[in-house]
Amino acid sequence: MRYEDFLDLGYTPGEDDLICRFHLEVDGMPFEKAAGGVAAESSVGTWTEISTFKSYVERLHATVFEINGPEIGIAYPIGLFEPGNMPNILSSVAGNVFGLKEVTNLRLNDIIFPRKLAASFKGPAYGIQGVRSLLGVRDRPLIGTIVKPKLGLNTADHAEVAYEAWRGGCDIVKDDENLAGQSFNPFEDRVVKTLEARDRAEEETGERKVYMANVTSETETMLRRAEFIEEQGGRYLMVDILTAGWSALQTLRDQDFKLVIHAHRAGHAALTKSPRHGIAMPVIAKISRLIGVDQLHVGAAVGKMTEGKEEVAENIEACTEEMHGIRPVLPVASGGVYPGLVPEMNRFFGRDFVCQAGGGIHGHPEGTAAGALAMRQAVEACLQKTPLKEYARDHRELALALEKWGEI
Amino acid sequence: MRYEDFLDLGYTPGEDDLICRFHLEVDGMPFEKAAGGVAAESSVGTWTEISTFKSYVERLHATVFEINGPEIGIAYPIGLFEPGNMPNILSSVAGNVFGLKEVTNLRLNDIIFPRKLAASFKGPAYGIQGVRSLLGVRDRPLIGTIVKPKLGLNTADHAEVAYEAWRGGCDIVKDDENLAGQSFNPFEDRVVKTLEARDRAEEETGERKVYMANVTSETETMLRRAEFIEEQGGRYLMVDILTAGWSALQTLRDQDFKLVIHAHRAGHAALTKSPRHGIAMPVIAKISRLIGVDQLHVGAAVGKMTEGKEEVAENIEACTEEMHGIRPVLPVASGGVYPGLVPEMNRFFGRDFVCQAGGGIHGHPEGTAAGALAMRQAVEACLQKTPLKEYARDHRELALALEKWGEI
Repeated sequence: MRYEDFLDLGYTPGEDDLICRFHLEVDGMPFEKAAGGVAAESSVGTWTEISTFKSYVERLHATVFEINGPEIGIAYPIGLFEPGNMPNILSSVAGNVFGLKEVTNLRLNDIIFPRKLAASFKGPAYGIQGVRSLLGVRDRPLIGTIVKPKLGLNTADHAEVAYEAWRGGCDIVKDDENLAGQSFNPFEDRVVKTLEARDRAEEETGERKVYMANVTSETETMLRRAEFIEEQGGRYLMVDILTAGWSALQTLRDQDFKLVIHAHRAGHAALTKSPRHGIAMPVIAKISRLIGVDQLHVGAAVGKMTEGKEEVAENIEACTEEMHGIRPVLPVASGGVYPGLVPEMNRFFGRDFVCQAGGGIHGHPEGTAAGALAMRQAVEACLQKTPLKEYARDHRELALALEKWGEI
Repeated sequence: MRYEDFLDLGYTPGEDDLICRFHLEVDGMPFEKAAGGVAAESSVGTWTEISTFKSYVERLHATVFEINGPEIGIAYPIGLFEPGNMPNILSSVAGNVFGLKEVTNLRLNDIIFPRKLAASFKGPAYGIQGVRSLLGVRDRPLIGTIVKPKLGLNTADHAEVAYEAWRGGCDIVKDDENLAGQSFNPFEDRVVKTLEARDRAEEETGERKVYMANVTSETETMLRRAEFIEEQGGRYLMVDILTAGWSALQTLRDQDFKLVIHAHRAGHAALTKSPRHGIAMPVIAKISRLIGVDQLHVGAAVGKMTEGKEEVAENIEACTEEMHGIRPVLPVASGGVYPGLVPEMNRFFGRDFVCQAGGGIHGHPEGTAAGALAMRQAVEACLQKTPLKEYARDHRELALALEKWGEI
């Protein structure tokens, strides 16, 4: 088959087709031929005609079925893929195609999994409703923090920061994405001491609190760490899905630990930042959801990170839209968040999200507990539809936070 | 610490520092401050001053120690990282930094691991010399092929194509990157039948032949498949290192299977293609080498893929340069290769590489065995310093290949 044979604009994808939408830019080859080249290289074709091609292989060829300016749609027969093998699927649809010489830029903008292929993955065990049940928080965004500084605290200080955050009003405390088992704060000791702090905070506040320990590492170490969290009475783990990778994430999910999986996307912007090349975040969100993470960082829409509201809205949609009955993933808003941003975030995210602040809590002039309380007050003000400045009149911690960082 | 505190152009990195070189583009913030922001976000800092910072944490801060136009160098104290945990290292140096709002583009161009950190990884078990010993080929490039069409052949036809390639003169036959355990060609059956074909080819040719079965999948499945290859008398596995991910690759290497690890880099160009954003291929090569792959795709320098000679030369250097005594990785040249390109590839790669052709073998007018023989003849011609056209006078298969695809 030649590149051109992978193009059929009259083709209507069937319910068993996997569909990908790409942004494509081409140099040195007609656009339609290059589009066919992408479909060829990601299915059964190559650059030259070969003697080993058999007629029975043809039923598996991918088809470019739509072209709108630089955007193309490709339909892949489900038989091209091994069920339950995400790396295998990606080695086709997000593999060699990026490196083709004539393709100057290529971005995988969307992926739609057919029901039968989706059913070969576990999906989230908890999802939004499972997390709400676990925490007993039904009617407001969850409030989370990251222990800061990112790295370097010893275990006792780490647990103390976590305790202060819970005591102040956080539901969730997490490790930062680059904290694992460094010698300054070893993993097992950290889990033990931080869960002790959690128990203390639960007793004092009467609220359910969770700690998300970062298990990111080589797969077997990761599984041992997850098991250790479970043994110690933890309820959550977190993992850096992109630096760990899809194989390990699947393996982790497949164990059916009784732990919510919080997915951090450290490194995603190497793939997602350019609008013309790479892989769009909604694609990463759908892949993660299918494999079965329960919470996922989607950007804050405000704050220190790069994505604007339109992009974050697409990420949220990928986490929550109807998808063959698979549970929705709880969006986590994180990155440069502080109390003054909460009203806008609330309007944007609705109630189902984790409002997560690191510096915006620990940078509070009166410390972590006051910072957590200020975040909680900001969330309460929004629930009562009271402007922050008004609410701050008799909520000192919020007033101090607004004074330090302002309100947008 | 403020972003500016992560900048010290008078700092000289020590032997225990990990060094990264980035290409950085900035908008809305002074360049030096943004450079400090990258060092902050990838070590112990954040966007605002925090009350939980302890003076003892300061010794772990990263330092921007050089700025040359848009290129910056950052030194990271080794204590920031968990030894033997590659995802953890990458979550710092190739994590959130790509997503910072003020950073319009960021590319991790180089990474230099300090000896102590490098020593916490296994490195290649075989490397170039180990592969040469295993194959008994000392004095010429190895000749490899990929079974084509990429996907869709049934197991019997797959094994037959492999047999023809070995019979014709290939040393190595590999699965394509997107072949795993699909129903049209199940993994175990494929390994059994293809290794039978290998044995037959070895007996007939008197040469050592290897088959690289693609184990890419969820980690535990991957390990079972590697074990199966070992049990069946295989000598090699292949894995898609980027779609599988670093955790699983480490896990695979850590098992010490008696199998050479061939690393396919499907998807790399989503990260590596832009000269201004993402992660450069030499960085991926060094990471893979440290973890311990034995062979790695580095581009063909000619052919259907995007990288030019300068880039491929850098990839080769990352595979083979002195690196704390860690074995060199055998570069694999693949992607649109055919016999007419061999002289130029030979001049460029020297003798230590796998000269790998798919379509350039199976597309031969007289079929796979003739195509493999034509490649072998092209390699022999180069060893004898005879121009291909001259050698082709009494080597019919090479003549037919040159006629079909020309000579550059």
